[in-house]
Amino acid sequence: MLVQKYKDMLSGKSVIRQLSEFATARGKEIGYENVFDYSLGNPSVPVPQEFTDKMIEMLSTKAPSELHGYSPSLGITAVRETIAASLERRFGLPYRKEHIFMASGAAGALAHAFRLVTEPGDEILTFAPFFPEYNPYVNLTGAQLKIVPPNTENFQINFEAFEEMLSEKVMAILVNTPNNPSGVVYSAETLQRLADILKKKSEEYGHIIYLISDEPYREIVFEGVDAPCVSAFYDNSIMCYSFSKSLSLPGERIGYVAINPNCADAEDMVNMCGQISRGTGHNCPPSIIQLAVAEVIDMTADLSVYETNMNLLYNELTALGFTCVKPGGTFYIFPKALEEDAKVFCEKALKYDLVLVPGDSFGAPGYFRMAYCIDTEKVERSLAALRKFVTEEYPQR
Amino acid sequence: MLVQKYKDMLSGKSVIRQLSEFATARGKEIGYENVFDYSLGNPSVPVPQEFTDKMIEMLSTKAPSELHGYSPSLGITAVRETIAASLERRFGLPYRKEHIFMASGAAGALAHAFRLVTEPGDEILTFAPFFPEYNPYVNLTGAQLKIVPPNTENFQINFEAFEEMLSEKVMAILVNTPNNPSGVVYSAETLQRLADILKKKSEEYGHIIYLISDEPYREIVFEGVDAPCVSAFYDNSIMCYSFSKSLSLPGERIGYVAINPNCADAEDMVNMCGQISRGTGHNCPPSIIQLAVAEVIDMTADLSVYETNMNLLYNELTALGFTCVKPGGTFYIFPKALEEDAKVFCEKALKYDLVLVPGDSFGAPGYFRMAYCIDTEKVERSLAALRKFVTEEYPQR
Repeated sequence: MLVQKYKDMLSGKSVIRQLSEFATARGKEIGYENVFDYSLGNPSVPVPQEFTDKMIEMLSTKAPSELHGYSPSLGITAVRETIAASLERRFGLPYRKEHIFMASGAAGALAHAFRLVTEPGDEILTFAPFFPEYNPYVNLTGAQLKIVPPNTENFQINFEAFEEMLSEKVMAILVNTPNNPSGVVYSAETLQRLADILKKKSEEYGHIIYLISDEPYREIVFEGVDAPCVSAFYDNSIMCYSFSKSLSLPGERIGYVAINPNCADAEDMVNMCGQISRGTGHNCPPSIIQLAVAEVIDMTADLSVYETNMNLLYNELTALGFTCVKPGGTFYIFPKALEEDAKVFCEKALKYDLVLVPGDSFGAPGYFRMAYCIDTEKVERSLAALRKFVTEEYPQR
Repeated sequence: MLVQKYKDMLSGKSVIRQLSEFATARGKEIGYENVFDYSLGNPSVPVPQEFTDKMIEMLSTKAPSELHGYSPSLGITAVRETIAASLERRFGLPYRKEHIFMASGAAGALAHAFRLVTEPGDEILTFAPFFPEYNPYVNLTGAQLKIVPPNTENFQINFEAFEEMLSEKVMAILVNTPNNPSGVVYSAETLQRLADILKKKSEEYGHIIYLISDEPYREIVFEGVDAPCVSAFYDNSIMCYSFSKSLSLPGERIGYVAINPNCADAEDMVNMCGQISRGTGHNCPPSIIQLAVAEVIDMTADLSVYETNMNLLYNELTALGFTCVKPGGTFYIFPKALEEDAKVFCEKALKYDLVLVPGDSFGAPGYFRMAYCIDTEKVERSLAALRKFVTEEYPQR
């Protein structure tokens, strides 16, 4: 018999995907350039030319067995060394290759992190607004994801609600900063307070509460914003990283788990990731992509377009009277809708070919997300549509 | 707390890996060319030049976003179409893209197949001798792998033992033909008899018993051997394929699940694979590798060396008096050891720098595996060592 839980999931279509499909269909009618498609978080800038050049160089000069052979189960040793050295250089923690496990993107990294520290029935807490894929990512492991309601003032952490929900069943906390969908970066003050609570509660409950940090947007931080390293605040932390956004390589499935060097059993945990892989059928990211990424380890794609787009949108939105926390990074912005039901609001926006995603599935009803990883020229053209939409649909404001 | 089941696995080291590490260490002493390392199933021939050329061409001419963008969750549509067309052409079953799910190698494909059709507590049967990684692959999903003892006469299926073990708890059968470690190809007669039993028992138990077929060695079949397509014999079958061996790309993690077009709910099953991925953190094989493999879909690396090596070894082994089923494919051979305990036998062989793997972990104690995916020149030199080993250690024979 087919397994019912997966069969049941077939009927539940992601809102983001539905909207993206609408945008594509509408694009066929009026030209996709005229659809202001803010639905998908797909990087819009190219991978650095250096990456492409390195790939071609390797393919032209190296023996196929060197490029395409099996990766050791924890990842290619030299690549793990390169990543550890880069993390140490940047964040000051004594990372070594023994702390690094190569994973197929952030999704792969998180799949390992969750299995490392939770058994079926355990709870993981995350903070709204949050990336809705965390639901299946966690719940399909048998653990349970619980959502701490948002602090809508600034999208930092709602500590009051958090402390209420932090029961003995909670084995891990999942944070995502810079945050999808709010674009907000957690401040040092937020992270310190979070760490203090986790230390106290770990002692009280007699078990470690791990801090899992999903960091695919780490390199997309805007001018003047301080983006502190989560792992620097708490020893029992697990960093999950992806090169998808920083290098614009989302399809190549490359990222890593970095266990905090000060974590108890750090090296065992990396080895355990290698065991977890045997059950998930993951068995390392592609060898050639591991090798190529190591060659451009401290580079990023030209990410400046995201900040340009953010400023255009933020200025227009606030001028139009939207309540909006200014993003510190990512390529998302998460304003408050102009009526209570953001789904109705976003439905109305479609008439103006503005594809906005209601905040409900992000755990923050009444808000909406715009993914501005699109050309600046299109963002500029969308501002008129936005003005028209607001003026016509919400004339009282 | 760290999850104990994964922590416990750290102490259990794979015999194959231990032997491979011995070979590497010994190689540092006497030169690796002098170690007759038959431990690992790592392809020894290069990927076809056409693959490398296509990769370079794509990297040189295509837009990065086209090459490195997110793959749809079931795989790139055009790639799935290419694979379906190739399968239909070759095996005569009406495969369409709707039956194909792209997976990260056979391990990834199997991880999806197991989750499709088993819940924790269900049983999967496989036939000894078998690839030992099936144990963690299955057992870490919560289902249970049970091993049907071998038919040592010809390493086809031991049907008597099979029918005894085929209880109502069995939801799937896992076959691997051409087989690792025996090199044996299941005959049409074997597959027909297996299918007949499964049909009868599915009806009797009132639930489908699925046939999962792990086929990474499908393209390595020797002259005069008929290698029938497993799926042609049984509608409720799931093909798991990897390009690792056929194209010598084991590190690039590329393969697929092909649901039998005649299977009930075939299309749903493919969509369910996309849901399963969300829990395993898999999210598709690398985009650029999907695209490149589709360009060389009906090619293989030059696999002829494996047959040359097989003949050299088979002739020498039988001449030396070994009982040995002649392989029909793969790059493995699985002779009977010259004493009851194959572990002792293989231990003695190490003195002659012959690295052989005892059959115990393959579910066939008393046998040993040789992986002859090495240079023919080395196989030839190893024959003298083999003769010396047998003559000195087993003089009575």
